Amino acid sequence: MPANVAIQGFRGSFHEVAARQYFGAAPALLPCATFGAVVAGVLSGAADAGLMAIENSLVGSIMPNFALLERAALRISGEVYLPIQQHLLALPGTTLADVQAVHSHPMALRQCGGFLGQHPHWQLIETDDTGHSAERLAQAQTPAVAVVAGRQAAELFGLAVLVPDIHDDPLNYTRFLVLERQLPASDPASGANKASLYFYTPHQPGSLARVLTEVARHGLNLSKLESVPRLGQPWHYAFHADVEFEEPTQFAALLTALPQYTEALRVLGTYWRGIMNEE
Amino acid sequence: MPANVAIQGFRGSFHEVAARQYFGAAPALLPCATFGAVVAGVLSGAADAGLMAIENSLVGSIMPNFALLERAALRISGEVYLPIQQHLLALPGTTLADVQAVHSHPMALRQCGGFLGQHPHWQLIETDDTGHSAERLAQAQTPAVAVVAGRQAAELFGLAVLVPDIHDDPLNYTRFLVLERQLPASDPASGANKASLYFYTPHQPGSLARVLTEVARHGLNLSKLESVPRLGQPWHYAFHADVEFEEPTQFAALLTALPQYTEALRVLGTYWRGIMNEE
Repeated sequence: MPANVAIQGFRGSFHEVAARQYFGAAPALLPCATFGAVVAGVLSGAADAGLMAIENSLVGSIMPNFALLERAALRISGEVYLPIQQHLLALPGTTLADVQAVHSHPMALRQCGGFLGQHPHWQLIETDDTGHSAERLAQAQTPAVAVVAGRQAAELFGLAVLVPDIHDDPLNYTRFLVLERQLPASDPASGANKASLYFYTPHQPGSLARVLTEVARHGLNLSKLESVPRLGQPWHYAFHADVEFEEPTQFAALLTALPQYTEALRVLGTYWRGIMNEE
Repeated sequence: MPANVAIQGFRGSFHEVAARQYFGAAPALLPCATFGAVVAGVLSGAADAGLMAIENSLVGSIMPNFALLERAALRISGEVYLPIQQHLLALPGTTLADVQAVHSHPMALRQCGGFLGQHPHWQLIETDDTGHSAERLAQAQTPAVAVVAGRQAAELFGLAVLVPDIHDDPLNYTRFLVLERQLPASDPASGANKASLYFYTPHQPGSLARVLTEVARHGLNLSKLESVPRLGQPWHYAFHADVEFEEPTQFAALLTALPQYTEALRVLGTYWRGIMNEE
């Protein structure tokens, strides 16, 4: 169990809720304003582990975080699925007509695009965090400002839920990755049933099909495939693939087979699948 | 040639530059504050065609626009690749030390994440458009505000380039799609060498591999594969695939073969590949 965990976000954030779900009450949480700061905190040893959102079921992948995973010498050691309910929070007594600006993390704003789009005169202001935005509103006492955040932020900072459940679809989940420093050497798949891979393929027809055929031939399930731009090579893509397996030997066999079909293949981590609880 | 074209953005925007590159000087441009308004304008007949950014080589896909493509009964009839240079614009005489807030479209802010991250005290404010932000700054004359936009916006509105080329990598391109209303009936691939497909696959191992193997077996090149969340089905993905071919018969044969491996297969459009000019 890590003694301290770096999270993106502050008190009242969804990262805080996800960290408590995964690690329990014991670890100290180190709030970070950016995802890059989470990675840096784990790399430097300031934190024993980090927690970083990677995709949301409404909005899709958080693309810059795939770039962080590619560049940092970290390993993914776990994942958390968290149901997300976004609310429009404001000072008690504020009405919808008072609101002129809405502050929140860009991912939270995007999960509520339908609702926010009905109020085109509202200024949308990107912030570092849902919880931080709620705290600042409570401190500044500005009735013209509302915040998109979770119920935990309303309770923590004494804000009112002006409009509940403003996310675009009731089934709204965010997936978080647990990040740790790399181990000196270990069996990549022991004690795990899921793995995250990074690779690119030769620029020729059928190259990605051959990779995915190998995944299927070895009996693994491809749970996620994300194409990401390669810096300096416009329209050449690298891939992040998550594969699920029952036996570590399946994954080991896949790792033996893949290098002939891929370039720059790396295992970003092996870990236990997270459980998706219904809210 | 369309008489008028709906674009996301206003005077001085990159959509304006892309529209002129593709359509020339003749059509009237109908500025729209949102991508949804572009789609609605074409659907209603207010515009004969629309132009919508779909991906950027640094930032990746604009995920909400894939959802728009899925839901709207439009067809993709062309594409434009535009080199993008982002600059920090301000009123003449403004210095970096004066800047407290930076306004721009969220995609432009994200292309400059490295530069903007060096100034963590700047408030980043999402707007509907790079050009519009530049125009408003010129009108409001607020020295504490800077704008991320292209050189065309600086020239149009008399702003100074405070810091040039602030995008994260010199090779920065945006791909735009041309949208038109659907035709009553036509040969899907005549007069085209590229197509955009939408589908999902049965939730069983190897299903995506089988689709991509068919693409390769028919001699088509998969130029883009994007997984998108399916609304109401967390962690079940649909796919947007772009395929390139030399002969329309290749594409016709693929369309005959794919239904046995896919669900909900749709051709979103067939068109000529855009040319990527070096700046």
